[in-house]
Amino acid sequence: MTAKKVCVVVGVGPGNGAALARRFASEGYAVALLARTTSTSEALAAALGDARAYACDVTDAASVARTFDAITLDLGPVHTIVYNAGSGTWGTVEDITPDMLEGAFRVNTLGLLLCTQRAIPAMKAQGSGSIVVVGSTASRRGVARTAAFAPAKAAQRSLAESMARHLWAQGIHVALIIVDGVVDSPRARAGMVGKPADSFLSPDAVADTAFHLATQHASAWSFEVEARPFNEPW
Amino acid sequence: MTAKKVCVVVGVGPGNGAALARRFASEGYAVALLARTTSTSEALAAALGDARAYACDVTDAASVARTFDAITLDLGPVHTIVYNAGSGTWGTVEDITPDMLEGAFRVNTLGLLLCTQRAIPAMKAQGSGSIVVVGSTASRRGVARTAAFAPAKAAQRSLAESMARHLWAQGIHVALIIVDGVVDSPRARAGMVGKPADSFLSPDAVADTAFHLATQHASAWSFEVEARPFNEPW
Amino acid sequence: MTAKKVCVVVGVGPGNGAALARRFASEGYAVALLARTTSTSEALAAALGDARAYACDVTDAASVARTFDAITLDLGPVHTIVYNAGSGTWGTVEDITPDMLEGAFRVNTLGLLLCTQRAIPAMKAQGSGSIVVVGSTASRRGVARTAAFAPAKAAQRSLAESMARHLWAQGIHVALIIVDGVVDSPRARAGMVGKPADSFLSPDAVADTAFHLATQHASAWSFEVEARPFNEPW
Amino acid sequence: MTAKKVCVVVGVGPGNGAALARRFASEGYAVALLARTTSTSEALAAALGDARAYACDVTDAASVARTFDAITLDLGPVHTIVYNAGSGTWGTVEDITPDMLEGAFRVNTLGLLLCTQRAIPAMKAQGSGSIVVVGSTASRRGVARTAAFAPAKAAQRSLAESMARHLWAQGIHVALIIVDGVVDSPRARAGMVGKPADSFLSPDAVADTAFHLATQHASAWSFEVEARPFNEPW
Repeated sequence: MTAKKVCVVVGVGPGNGAALARRFASEGYAVALLARTTSTSEALAAALGDARAYACDVTDAASVARTFDAITLDLGPVHTIVYNAGSGTWGTVEDITPDMLEGAFRVNTLGLLLCTQRAIPAMKAQGSGSIVVVGSTASRRGVARTAAFAPAKAAQRSLAESMARHLWAQGIHVALIIVDGVVDSPRARAGMVGKPADSFLSPDAVADTAFHLATQHASAWSFEVEARPFNEPW
Repeated sequence: MTAKKVCVVVGVGPGNGAALARRFASEGYAVALLARTTSTSEALAAALGDARAYACDVTDAASVARTFDAITLDLGPVHTIVYNAGSGTWGTVEDITPDMLEGAFRVNTLGLLLCTQRAIPAMKAQGSGSIVVVGSTASRRGVARTAAFAPAKAAQRSLAESMARHLWAQGIHVALIIVDGVVDSPRARAGMVGKPADSFLSPDAVADTAFHLATQHASAWSFEVEARPFNEPW
Repeated sequence: MTAKKVCVVVGVGPGNGAALARRFASEGYAVALLARTTSTSEALAAALGDARAYACDVTDAASVARTFDAITLDLGPVHTIVYNAGSGTWGTVEDITPDMLEGAFRVNTLGLLLCTQRAIPAMKAQGSGSIVVVGSTASRRGVARTAAFAPAKAAQRSLAESMARHLWAQGIHVALIIVDGVVDSPRARAGMVGKPADSFLSPDAVADTAFHLATQHASAWSFEVEARPFNEPW
Repeated sequence: MTAKKVCVVVGVGPGNGAALARRFASEGYAVALLARTTSTSEALAAALGDARAYACDVTDAASVARTFDAITLDLGPVHTIVYNAGSGTWGTVEDITPDMLEGAFRVNTLGLLLCTQRAIPAMKAQGSGSIVVVGSTASRRGVARTAAFAPAKAAQRSLAESMARHLWAQGIHVALIIVDGVVDSPRARAGMVGKPADSFLSPDAVADTAFHLATQHASAWSFEVEARPFNEPW
């Protein structure tokens, strides 16, 4: 147990997730790192100090329940969630399968509901909380090749907005980051040879905006905020 | 088999669905009426003449496949779909169950994909087609008590937009009606005593806009169109 | 004086304006054709029968007042306005002059207010009226080269929306057509050699949607409707 | 002359403007305070140290040119502009005068263009700059009683977006704060007796978000950010 605020980062891979965990840890939070397996998150948790890695399938209600119970026992009541779980299947309405559509919805939207519902009582008991969702520009519009991904992100954005309108008045700040561009990572660079180095989103910069949102003064909260490289066309 | 264009109305209850079926039938279409059961749609089909009722669970891929195969055999290749299936569960993020969220998504969004995928090849073979989706103002914003409904309608709108950007160029017009208000029906009136009679949406007026969309000239297509009573606050 | 409904088409050149005038005339309206000069509109008015051309500078309150007084005297009380006046100056924030920004605002937005204010009392006296504004996709987003045009169209859309929320409940239908593409005309074709013939908006198709809007049933009015060629990227 | 970065706060009254000036001064900027008169800004400038008050009519090109020339001479090349000039006339389309519509446009939109055009060359010469516009939720929708105000704010938002799409790639960050609520001030409180103290926007909190925007890392810039009290309905 700890006296620190507890932040749960959902979806910790090498990109945004790791940067978010580092940032909240360095600001004095106890951090829970959630991923499908702990293969990469365990080493990160160890390096961060007051942090712990958990294996969690966010689309499985029982797995989410077990994980949040364990976090509460290990670290204390959850104060902040940064929901970074996501998926990026591409294809038109003619390419995708119904499973791809449903799978994207389950990771991006259902998982957000499952995690949030496990944490709201603790946030209400503390009188404050933050839920920052890492969304995507696909939530604002569906283009031809995002027939599975865009509906999932649109549903996620809509759920976040519904949650915000219900939870803000109870002191729980729900906010959404619209990531518009490619987040930097060795894999992203390898997949996009020739794309200029300064045209990727820095995970640390995304984490900076996430932390700003999670600690805004309640008299001037933001809901929806883009994170976009200066040289990204939009 | 028929030489008429074939219109499939998905979701035929006493409100919009019946009015849509009547309108397309009166404009010379052969009409397939889809509902979970044919208990009310059968009588309507009989009254319309060149029309037929089908029991179909739009969330079940096999049921959709069987139904569209039967329609093709009975009436001919599908030219127009009016997707009117929907659901209206209310509740905040604290009230709803994950099943409510997922169920709404399956009826509103997954079902749209399943039906559309069965009809696209025929529309492409005909060189033209229309898909008109009956959406909701909830697709544009999530409010506190639409934690299950709004994400489903937002996902539906996003899928429709993705489909539009892919299919328009192939001569298939995808459009979305944003219903903003309460559609008139005996049940709606009974549930809202005191609400003025002229503040309900007339199903015939919704059908008029759906028909306008389904027959617009391809040089000036609309994607998203509201249907809202003149005295509805917005 | 006439027993017909009176429609004022503001901004009659060879494209949308002429098609709008023809359509409303053929549907039985008496039509007033407004343009800065009557050099082209006079011949059109003569051909239409119950129609009349007026020279009007929509950015000049006195000119608008004189014109609407004359229309009322000549044709009767105004029932419908189709506001098609517009301007299309291109340039970035570094290219444009303040006069270009202000000029675009005056034609697109101030003129809409001036014309509308002269007609509202007559519409209220008749118990019904229609105001259809021909807008642009630029009203939804400003891109680099629309630093003067997009703000004017955004202001026009905002004014139309404010008018709608105030006037609908009084039986006056305000609606907006979002033109997204290049309207066909000999001049447009000459300026865009190589652009496929079927990628221009047909003025008659725009007029068809304008007429649909002007005559929708009050239980299911639309506010904002796109008009976009099937093969236009968006 | 100074080695500090120069920030121009346009529109310095007792609310946001003063808080913005204090914040940028405390972060090490030399600050220019612009208002129609220097009656209140002069005392604030004196208290801030490296700051100076200027009388400027932002709707007058010559006044803006003189002021920016003086700032450059007095403090150095402009690096950051926070555009806080605005106006709030209320009324429906039937209430407002054309002058009210045009006046609102001139203060909110034309003034933004005039100020920005005077500073872009210096920002380009420095290789970086920030332009933060204090907008309003009225920019997103026009309601009945904002027939003059909403179009002006919509035009301002559109101009800001056009500027962003042109200037970001040159290292100049243009961003927009959507103020959604009533900014705290003695006058606001006096005018809204009974409104809870914690339902006003704190100017310091708005300034915190403005400063965050003005110093974001270029790999993850935001364009549009709300500032809304936790208990404001939306």
